[in-house]
Amino acid sequence: MVKLLTIAGLGPGASNMVTPNVQEAISSATDIVGYIPYVARIPPRDGLVLHPSDNRVEIERAELALDLAASGKKVLIVSSGDPGVFAMAAAVFEILDKNPSRWADVEVQILPGITAMLAAAAKIGAPLGHDFCTLNLSDNLKPWGLIEKRLLLGIEADFAMALYNPRSKSRPEGFNKALTILKRECSKDRLIVFARAISTPEEKIQIMNLTQAKPEMADMQTVVIIGSSQTKALIQNGKTFAYTPRYSKLGSTN
Amino acid sequence: MVKLLTIAGLGPGASNMVTPNVQEAISSATDIVGYIPYVARIPPRDGLVLHPSDNRVEIERAELALDLAASGKKVLIVSSGDPGVFAMAAAVFEILDKNPSRWADVEVQILPGITAMLAAAAKIGAPLGHDFCTLNLSDNLKPWGLIEKRLLLGIEADFAMALYNPRSKSRPEGFNKALTILKRECSKDRLIVFARAISTPEEKIQIMNLTQAKPEMADMQTVVIIGSSQTKALIQNGKTFAYTPRYSKLGSTN
Repeated sequence: MVKLLTIAGLGPGASNMVTPNVQEAISSATDIVGYIPYVARIPPRDGLVLHPSDNRVEIERAELALDLAASGKKVLIVSSGDPGVFAMAAAVFEILDKNPSRWADVEVQILPGITAMLAAAAKIGAPLGHDFCTLNLSDNLKPWGLIEKRLLLGIEADFAMALYNPRSKSRPEGFNKALTILKRECSKDRLIVFARAISTPEEKIQIMNLTQAKPEMADMQTVVIIGSSQTKALIQNGKTFAYTPRYSKLGSTN
Repeated sequence: MVKLLTIAGLGPGASNMVTPNVQEAISSATDIVGYIPYVARIPPRDGLVLHPSDNRVEIERAELALDLAASGKKVLIVSSGDPGVFAMAAAVFEILDKNPSRWADVEVQILPGITAMLAAAAKIGAPLGHDFCTLNLSDNLKPWGLIEKRLLLGIEADFAMALYNPRSKSRPEGFNKALTILKRECSKDRLIVFARAISTPEEKIQIMNLTQAKPEMADMQTVVIIGSSQTKALIQNGKTFAYTPRYSKLGSTN
């Protein structure tokens, strides 16, 4: 009996950004496991069992999926964006690593998806066109001090930065602190982009200078992109874009 | 007359990782512009003009595409992976920024794709499951000193790191130097992954400790992923994976 667990990325929201191999995995699955709003993106059909679960129960969700796969079901865990970027793939391997024998004969495969920062960057222009870093701003699983350290080193390296999970109702303070650090360390005209719910009907994009940025502009559906010192805005055919040139120099980087 | 230039990402190589909206843009284009091996991925058809060009002529390629779009052609620039990650989107905006009036009425749209590091990470497990940075190792457009600075700061931040364009025939020395720095600054069991031509018939993946890594393992078709200090290897159902846990602590990071 084949025992297969697939972990797939649904992309940022639009159905025309779901890759064909993820679409095929959805079509052939018997069981779909994932966070409630992501499972809601899967059209119901006869013979398909949906297993939606709440936020912050990634470990229980991974165990359920592995148990179903071990019983012979064709199980698909769905993540928004890409399953390998702050999503379910790491959670599944954490559980497998802690229980090396329990699901030893389950084959695991991961199908990539368009992660939020790439969808946002495409809508905005090319803000990640040069070296960049990607940070999860949630301190649920790491201390805030580590986030602050990485933010400061990212600024020192003059990376463009993509910030995931910038701000939630239960932790509104982190992004305030991150913005304060950015405003203190970077020049006033540094570009910042708030990209919310890209490719969905609720899509909203705001490009501005750091001085104009306010904490309330971000929520859990927003990816925030901070330009490097070299990132520029331009207006093309009436629309504002931001891009980071491919070339760069050593020297002052604020 | 609509004047539209589309810049699209073809993903890492496999046709089942091309998103439907990129597929639609290919089907409706009159002209395809891009680097020779990427244009070669587009099936010829009546009425479609292919404009393949050599490496390192990104600016001329962008100008050709903009001129064709300005003349009313439906032009598609194709990049491998994602067009916004070390690819053609930034080059097009550089040219538009330098010539603000020449193509003022051309609408530009960018369609994201699965970039190499996400395709590689999915095949390997979840090495980018926590904070990470993405570096272009080519010093064609930036000084080597800046690459070295960012590499050292990336290590200090304990990011997992994805290194694009690690090594070419014309610049074999850079990756040697990068490996020397990594071996000096990181512990011996730090994981490194060489992921070459992911999702193509030439796909090759090597996971090892830093001490076993050799410069010749990388070429221009390889993306190199360096784990953070927390990245672990595990064997699941006979296959070796690497993942970075979602949680992390402050402290020693080598």
